[in-house]
Amino acid sequence: MKGSMDSRIRQDRFTEARRAGERIDDLQHKGRFLLQKEAAFCFSLDAVLLAHFADLKKGEQILDLGTGTGVLPILLADAERRLHFAAIERQTEMAELAARNVELNALIGEIRVIEGDYREMNRHCARESFDVVLSNPPFFAVGDGRESPVESIAHARHEHTATLTDTLEAARYALKFGGRLYMIHRASRLEEIAGCLSEKKFALKRLRCIHPFADREADLILIEARKGGKAGVRIDPPFVVREAGGDYSTELKDYYREETV
Amino acid sequence: MKGSMDSRIRQDRFTEARRAGERIDDLQHKGRFLLQKEAAFCFSLDAVLLAHFADLKKGEQILDLGTGTGVLPILLADAERRLHFAAIERQTEMAELAARNVELNALIGEIRVIEGDYREMNRHCARESFDVVLSNPPFFAVGDGRESPVESIAHARHEHTATLTDTLEAARYALKFGGRLYMIHRASRLEEIAGCLSEKKFALKRLRCIHPFADREADLILIEARKGGKAGVRIDPPFVVREAGGDYSTELKDYYREETV
Repeated sequence: MKGSMDSRIRQDRFTEARRAGERIDDLQHKGRFLLQKEAAFCFSLDAVLLAHFADLKKGEQILDLGTGTGVLPILLADAERRLHFAAIERQTEMAELAARNVELNALIGEIRVIEGDYREMNRHCARESFDVVLSNPPFFAVGDGRESPVESIAHARHEHTATLTDTLEAARYALKFGGRLYMIHRASRLEEIAGCLSEKKFALKRLRCIHPFADREADLILIEARKGGKAGVRIDPPFVVREAGGDYSTELKDYYREETV
Repeated sequence: MKGSMDSRIRQDRFTEARRAGERIDDLQHKGRFLLQKEAAFCFSLDAVLLAHFADLKKGEQILDLGTGTGVLPILLADAERRLHFAAIERQTEMAELAARNVELNALIGEIRVIEGDYREMNRHCARESFDVVLSNPPFFAVGDGRESPVESIAHARHEHTATLTDTLEAARYALKFGGRLYMIHRASRLEEIAGCLSEKKFALKRLRCIHPFADREADLILIEARKGGKAGVRIDPPFVVREAGGDYSTELKDYYREETV
């Protein structure tokens, strides 16, 4: 009851803070909300899947590469478990929005937003200072797939600013030895990702394939890699988005049932 | 009816040909049978999964690396589609058994058994002479997992004679440009396989994960790779071996229902 009251008060705060061209989305998680730009890239199922895949431990230092609206740390922040997030974002207007979202969700103590380009990580953090890196990077190489005319969308979907190699290089720099990288990416790029991980001395430790239906090809993959880890991949049970009838799967519905305050 | 009569006559032929220490297994496919050595490595579900995964086209030249009893070409041979198999096996007694199995199944016109070591493919075939290579290689690196005291089992399970690199090198040598490799392997070795494929200039084109149950980790993977192919992986729907109740899945049962003469 207290929780849902807090949640209502918080929603009111978002409504007051909302600016022209922005929308409010209910994250359906611990009463958290998110302001997003109507004309810009909005978070999608990817972020929810990655947030549930990441296995974070008490007291860990976590870096989110290209945080956008801040959705990943806002979904994952947990004061009781003393998780500390740094969230880096290159686009000024998105970094500002992420900072406002953090403040409105009362998560300033847990999430630090950095405006900056993660291709220059050494300007923003010390080498080997994080336990975990999160990445929901642009899925498409430039020239592959249709591009959005809206820059923030194009940059979130296509590798204009950061390629797969840039992302793994930033993760390699920021992570402690033995640190974990959690990433979501397009299934079709699996071989390239595996090759790039090996090149950067990461071991692919866990793979989960996301299938729109149980009898369809996977479109996305979730990956856990360990900096300097020992070889040996665990392939998790498949994640199925929808039942044959079109309803969301029980597993996905459970993501929204858990822990709602 | 005629089919099942042929099948009975053929089974009688196997019974007559069986030697001490051998057993007869019904492949439940086109009335084909297989003699196996009781004390040696016997074919398992792996071969059936790989046979169904391989997508063979009319008139193709196909090479099976380390054929053992000959099970893969015997499952796949198809005179009407004019498929031509070469099946290489290093162990003399297994090569002899494969040749007897081919003869007893009346498949001499379609399958040629070669006794030899596929680490020296140039002694057995011309470079770039096959459209397809099949491989159900040893799953375990030497020192990984318990070894069988029986040599033929140890060599089928552990990389005493052929490593992953040897297998891919043999495939690279034997395949035409654009030719396909179909392989089954342990899920845990996915990253190593992907890296090794890239090194040998194969593109990983298709991946299917084999899960013992829908909610369990995959233990095996099926792989299609193309020599000199363009990057881009398709991840097939998961293959589930058993339903929650323990029965074989419909898909696996269908493998045994198809085309039985």
